[in-house]
Order: sequence, then structure tokens, then C-alpha cells
Amino acid sequence: MTTTTTLCHSTADDIVVRGRSLPRELIGKLTFTEMIYFELTGREPTPAQRAVLDACLVTLMEHGLTPSAIATRLTYGSAPEAMQGAVAAGLLGVGSTFVGSTEGCVALLAQIAGGADPLAIARGSKRLPGFGHPVHKPVDPRTVALLALARAQGLFGAHCTALERLSQAVDQVAGRAIVVNATAAVAALIADAGLPIEILRGIALISRCAGLVGHIREEQQSPAMRALWEGAEAAVPYKEQP
Amino acid sequence: MTTTTTLCHSTADDIVVRGRSLPRELIGKLTFTEMIYFELTGREPTPAQRAVLDACLVTLMEHGLTPSAIATRLTYGSAPEAMQGAVAAGLLGVGSTFVGSTEGCVALLAQIAGGADPLAIARGSKRLPGFGHPVHKPVDPRTVALLALARAQGLFGAHCTALERLSQAVDQVAGRAIVVNATAAVAALIADAGLPIEILRGIALISRCAGLVGHIREEQQSPAMRALWEGAEAAVPYKEQP
Amino acid sequence: MTTTTTLCHSTADDIVVRGRSLPRELIGKLTFTEMIYFELTGREPTPAQRAVLDACLVTLMEHGLTPSAIATRLTYGSAPEAMQGAVAAGLLGVGSTFVGSTEGCVALLAQIAGGADPLAIARGSKRLPGFGHPVHKPVDPRTVALLALARAQGLFGAHCTALERLSQAVDQVAGRAIVVNATAAVAALIADAGLPIEILRGIALISRCAGLVGHIREEQQSPAMRALWEGAEAAVPYKEQP
Amino acid sequence: MTTTTTLCHSTADDIVVRGRSLPRELIGKLTFTEMIYFELTGREPTPAQRAVLDACLVTLMEHGLTPSAIATRLTYGSAPEAMQGAVAAGLLGVGSTFVGSTEGCVALLAQIAGGADPLAIARGSKRLPGFGHPVHKPVDPRTVALLALARAQGLFGAHCTALERLSQAVDQVAGRAIVVNATAAVAALIADAGLPIEILRGIALISRCAGLVGHIREEQQSPAMRALWEGAEAAVPYKEQP
Repeated sequence: MTTTTTLCHSTADDIVVRGRSLPRELIGKLTFTEMIYFELTGREPTPAQRAVLDACLVTLMEHGLTPSAIATRLTYGSAPEAMQGAVAAGLLGVGSTFVGSTEGCVALLAQIAGGADPLAIARGSKRLPGFGHPVHKPVDPRTVALLALARAQGLFGAHCTALERLSQAVDQVAGRAIVVNATAAVAALIADAGLPIEILRGIALISRCAGLVGHIREEQQSPAMRALWEGAEAAVPYKEQP
Repeated sequence: MTTTTTLCHSTADDIVVRGRSLPRELIGKLTFTEMIYFELTGREPTPAQRAVLDACLVTLMEHGLTPSAIATRLTYGSAPEAMQGAVAAGLLGVGSTFVGSTEGCVALLAQIAGGADPLAIARGSKRLPGFGHPVHKPVDPRTVALLALARAQGLFGAHCTALERLSQAVDQVAGRAIVVNATAAVAALIADAGLPIEILRGIALISRCAGLVGHIREEQQSPAMRALWEGAEAAVPYKEQP
Repeated sequence: MTTTTTLCHSTADDIVVRGRSLPRELIGKLTFTEMIYFELTGREPTPAQRAVLDACLVTLMEHGLTPSAIATRLTYGSAPEAMQGAVAAGLLGVGSTFVGSTEGCVALLAQIAGGADPLAIARGSKRLPGFGHPVHKPVDPRTVALLALARAQGLFGAHCTALERLSQAVDQVAGRAIVVNATAAVAALIADAGLPIEILRGIALISRCAGLVGHIREEQQSPAMRALWEGAEAAVPYKEQP
Repeated sequence: MTTTTTLCHSTADDIVVRGRSLPRELIGKLTFTEMIYFELTGREPTPAQRAVLDACLVTLMEHGLTPSAIATRLTYGSAPEAMQGAVAAGLLGVGSTFVGSTEGCVALLAQIAGGADPLAIARGSKRLPGFGHPVHKPVDPRTVALLALARAQGLFGAHCTALERLSQAVDQVAGRAIVVNATAAVAALIADAGLPIEILRGIALISRCAGLVGHIREEQQSPAMRALWEGAEAAVPYKEQP
């Protein structure tokens, strides 16, 4: 059996993406967000699904001088002729430490949506993915905004509901309010917007990519690379090995 | 003088991006495309600017099995636990061979917009960046769609006009119609939409990033990695060195 | 407590690496392989340890048109001005599918060296990491060379012995000879040469990096990028989605 | 005409690299450095060429907390499950700012070796690639060690001589001693060792790759990622945009 691709096909006078003419049916017709949804699923999103995906992409884009953004700026200053390398360096930090929790969280939500008991899950681990935040307490304001949007758009579905139930269980077990962080909310919204949860990290990558390009733009106008380098280097002094 | 950043700042109950509250003024208020424009310039786009940026991001996203997409799929098959590495590998191909022409073209358009003679430029080089295409002839249908959109949106400005004039000059020098390819049109539209041309490659990176995530999604559902590998390997047989 | 680094320190007239003067005690005194061992452990290798590390680095360097090498060549052809991007793209394929087995294998060897029963391990899984090979049967000639070298150098230690015992157990369970592949042998040798097994993948990365630079050199002299691209593309035809 | 590769070929019982049997003629026979030379040129190095390449690889490997090393450590801390991503992120900083000067320098040396006047070159630019160093003054001790080694090995050839003559011309034009930095010396030695100068950056990449793996090893034992992050972040405070 031949392996095939359904994504794209070019002829002299057309480019067809998932069955639609790019110049005639997509350019000027779909927003970038709608096109992302279409590329990933083969379906156009409903206006509500589009709004939810937009909100998630807006949420994850910019977090200031994260390890990712610092890596991008250091690399851009080292090889400004290769902007793609600077973006790639930053994206390589989108791994288990920071985004892994989104994926761990959505797995729990899927279990609860499928019938698992939130209390049992909350009791099973001291530190659940998607819960707790070093800065945003007692509430992550992005979570509030995202869940409100899902409700307003009529997309507060099985995963959002599971997140709400899990949050109550977590609070009950802890005996106090534990913050539901933004990555947990993004996970729930993406799943309830009909996107495949296996591609969750990919959505974070698209959003972060745009944020990293923003850091490169600032680096072009107001280079911070030397200051970042010197600040990092000074924080970890040399010590003779014993 | 201290180096500073104006991009983002977090407090316990807010995240401020370029002076605006992310949870209160951006999530659910701006589309992803509007947020990209805002991140890059500090200004919200007009509806016309937003439409033009959307069209450019839609145009560059998906081109089928390009070297970039193949690198992403081979890498994903080799390290499926690190999706970020697969996307990074693909983005690293966004260099001089394929996107460099966009940047070369916008430089010419800026010269013409600044008073340079299109005919002199057309006579100066046999192969101008942004002109010619191996598949799309005599017209690149994406170029037609993009320029029509710019006109409809009232954003057919100095760079689009320069492209039109350069195209006429190129045809005159060649004695026949030479195709204006999509990268040239994107360059002109981005510049006329008020975005800094120094970040042009970054816009291509954002768009391609989304396309590469699409390839990863297809790889998850219908893996083509082995077939791509074997096809490539078979195309370049071993030969004893002389 | 301050975090510190013991790796390197510069003054106006010296660079000190792990306590030794780079210009006076390392350049011209240590081979690259000895320097790698020294950088990773803080100790100079014995001649036998050096020979074993050399052999492992030689073994993993070049495997022809692997997915890694193809990704490097496609990327180099797309962005020849950024050789570092092409090497990075290839290294990103050094993940679980191809090198993961080395790490899985060394964990089993450590268990056996620590007293676990090889037969129980062999019975526990149908496909053990480090066993079997699609091309090299019934024997992987690199394994033979590596184990012979370890023996000749007096470094056939607990991990090599564990590999031998595991191999016998695997054959017994299968009822036929199962090939011990080169990654298993490399894992055993590296461990018995006194290198930390947590850095095994890093050693593969150093070796593969050199191999990928070799592919770039061939690409400079005899570009295969177009042929690789066309071969891969043709192997995965477009099919309209249902 | 078919595109071919001369690098590597596998059969059931052999792997042939550039015409030699990997298990029978290379593993245990060649050092890693000899194998690198062989992979890049198809020839085994003489002992002197091997010594010079070893010295260059040792020289470029470790420089402490450079932007490259910081990017690697930040990325490793963000995605420890994907060591290859951390190494790739660091290598992406091997670009024009830090290694570009090696390539610029070797081009000048080739001109002088070909008959160009060093004084004319020295007068032509205020800041020649390979000259000057922010820390190592008035002499870069690595340069001294490298040039002494080349002389001792009988490989002080046309490029080393050109470097000596260019250095005298630069001093004469400046009216004082200007330091010849290590990258200039590496460039001259590599060229006089018979390696293709087009692959100079590749040699830097192999060496740096080993150094970055050393930083990952230190990160495994004594994680500095948080300290590097906080040090960098604190050095570039947020400022409201005007």
C-alpha cells in the first residue's frame, strides 16, 4: 500500500490544500487561525471554535524573558544572519518542564470526561499537572478569562467541566484553594474546541513561535543580548573543582 | 544605561503585554493575527491591515512536501517524544534559498518606492528575487489573489505599486511575461501593511511553523517517515569513490 | 548557596578548563578524545579508556543516508549560509527511535551487573533494546569489533559481561541466535570505560555531529539535496482526502 | 546523470565508509580525530596533521558560559528528555558573530598565500577578522600554543606564514601590538593541515558539540539553569513603552 499525503498539491495554476484552492478559496477568505484549524483537522472551525483557538494562541504567545526567549535572543545575537536558528533555539525549550504539564493535564481531563473520579485523581498525586503557579495566586487571571470565553461561546464542554470538577476535588484534598493555571485551561479549551489533543504541544509551538519573533523584533531595535549574557554568566561564578 | 524590555511584565494578578492586560484586554478581544501585529509593532492593526496579514500568513503556511516539511517528518519519526525538535528542524530550512528571495525583493521595492528606476533594476540582473517560478506559469495564482486583496482593502501602497512597476520593467527587458511569484507579493503586502520589513522572515517562520505542525499531525495519523526516508535514500545510490 | 560552574575560567593570560591551563596543559598535550573524556569526568582517561572511547566515537559517526543525514542535507541546501542550522537539524533526529535503544540497553546491563537475572529479563520482553537489526544478521560486525577491542584493552568489565550473559539468555528464549547490535555494544563499552551512562546520548551526539559535517562536506562538493527532495516527494503522492 | 554518495554503504556483514570496512579497518584502528579527517577528505591524516587537528578541536571546545552554553543549559532544563534539542540550541549560536571571524580570516590568509600584500590588507580595514580580543591581551595564549605546535609538527605552511606576515603588518599600521586571537590561529592551522577551508565552521561545530555535552553533564550534576535564567532576566528589567 502506498503512503500518501492529503495536505497539499500544486499544479501550474493552482495550489490545493486539503481539497480547497489556496488562491481561490483560502487566501482572503480564512483568517490565519481558521487556516490553522483547517490544516489540522480538514474542517473549518465554527465561529465559536475559532474564537476559542484564537484565545488560546493569544494566551501562550508572550511571557517575557522565559528560558525560551532568552535562548532565542542569545542565538540571534550570535547569528543574526540566520533568524530561523534563533527561533528554533527558543522553540527547543518547549518541552516537558513548561508545556509537558498541559499534556499531562489534558490526559487527566479525558479520564474524568470518560467517567474517572476526580477525587481519586486528586488524592493520587501531590502535584497535579495544570495546578499551582509560582507567581499567579490565588487565581491565574488567564484561566478566568479563558473559561469565561468558553462559556460565552457555548464551548464549555466535557473537558472544561472535568477541569472544574478536578479543581474542586484538588481544593478539597488540599484544604485550600489551589490555582488552576493557564496551561490547564488551554488544554481544556483546545479539547472542547474539537482539536485533537495529540497536537496540543504543536499549538503551543505555533503561539510561542510568534512570541519569539516578537523578541527578535525587540532585539533588532533594542539589543539585550549582551546584558542577558552578562547577567546569566555573573549569576553562576567559577569555582575550582575539589 | 540599563537595557530594558517593553514586551511583558507579570504580577500576581496580571500579565501585561506591551502595556495591555493579557487577561483583560487581549484574551478574547484580539485574534491571533491581531496579537501578532500588536506584539511586533505595539499597535493594533486596522481591519485592512489585519486582513492583509491574515492573507500573507495563510499563503505561506502549506506547500506540501518541501525540504522543510520532509525534515520535520523525518525528525518526528526519529524523536516523536520531542515534537519541538521536529518543528525546529523544519524551520531551520527557512533560509536564503527559499525565503531569501522575499527579503531581496522587498529591498528592491523599497528602492523603487524611494525613487529608483525600475527599468535600471530590471536591466541590472538576469534573475531578480521574487520573479520566476518553476511550477506556476505564466501567472502565480497566489500573487493575483494577494494583490487583489490589497487593492480591495485599500492597502495597495508604495510597495505594491513598486512591484507592479518592476514587473512591467522585467517583462519589457525579457520581451515576455515573467511570473511575479507569491513571495514577492507577500513582501509588498507586508510592507504596505505597516509591518517592519526587517521582520519579514519572522512572519514566514510563524506561518511555516503552523504548516509544519500540520505535517506532524498527518504523520501522527498516517506516518510517511519510512517512505520519505526510503524514497530519498534510493534516489542517491552509493558509488565507490575513485 | 550560590550555584557555581567548575568547567572553565578565563583571565588575561590563561584559560583554565577543569583546573588545567588550556594553552599550557591541554592544547598539543591531549587528543580530542582525551579532552572529551576530561571535560565529561574531570579525569584523563587511561590509554585503554581512550582507545575504547575512540572506538565508540568512530562506530557511531557514519551510517550513510539516515533520516538525520537527509535532514541535514535538505537544510543545508535550503540555508547554506547557516551550516550550524543544518547540523542542528540532523542532530534533532538523535532521539528515542534510533538512540533510545542504547539507553534502554545500558539500563538492563546495569541491572544485570547489579545482580538481576538475565533470563528473567530476556523472558520479560519480546523486543529488548540493543537486540535485533534489520540489515546486519546473524552478527553485527561492529559489535564483534567493539567487544574484541574491550577485551584486548582489558576493559571487558561488568557491563560487557552482562551483555554477553543477556545475549545468551535472549538466544535461549528465542531458540535461535539474535543479533546484538552495535548500540548495545557501545553502551556496554562506554559504561565499562568509566563514563557516566547518563551522558550516553551526548556521546552519540558528538559522534553524529562529526558524521553530519561529513555529509555537509559531500553536499558542498556533490550536492544531493534536490535528488533527496525529489526522491522523498515522489515516494509519498498526494491523494484527495475522502 | 545520477547523483551519488561516496560516504557509506551497508551490507549484511559489513559497513563500508569511504571505501574502508568500518568494523575491520576503522574501529580500533583510527582515533576519532583520524576518522574525522578521513570522513572529511577521504584520506588518513599524517601524524602531524592528526596532531594539529586534535589541537584545534581541543582549543575550540570549552569557553565557559558563552551564549551557546547558556542556551544549551536553559534548553536542557526546559526539556531534559530531549538532550539533542539542548545541544542543537547551543550549536545554533555558532554563527557570524563568534565564528564568522575564523572564516573571514582564512579568506585573508588565502589571499596573502596567493600573493596579496599584507600591508594593503592591514590598511584596508580597522578591524580585521581574527585580530583583537576583549580579554586576552597583549597575547592570546592559545595562539602561541597553536603556532608553536604547527612549527614543531612541520606544518607551519603557507597559511601560518601568511598569518605571521599579516600580524606584523597589522602591528605596523596600528603602531602597537594587536593580539592575534585563537580563531585566526585555528584557521591557519586547519588550512595548513590540508583540510578544506570551506568546512572550517563544521570543525568548530564538532568541537563545540563536545563542549556543550560537557555543559549538559554539569547541568545533570549541578543544575545552574534557574540561576542562569534569573540572572539573565534580572539584567533586563521591564519598562513601560513610551
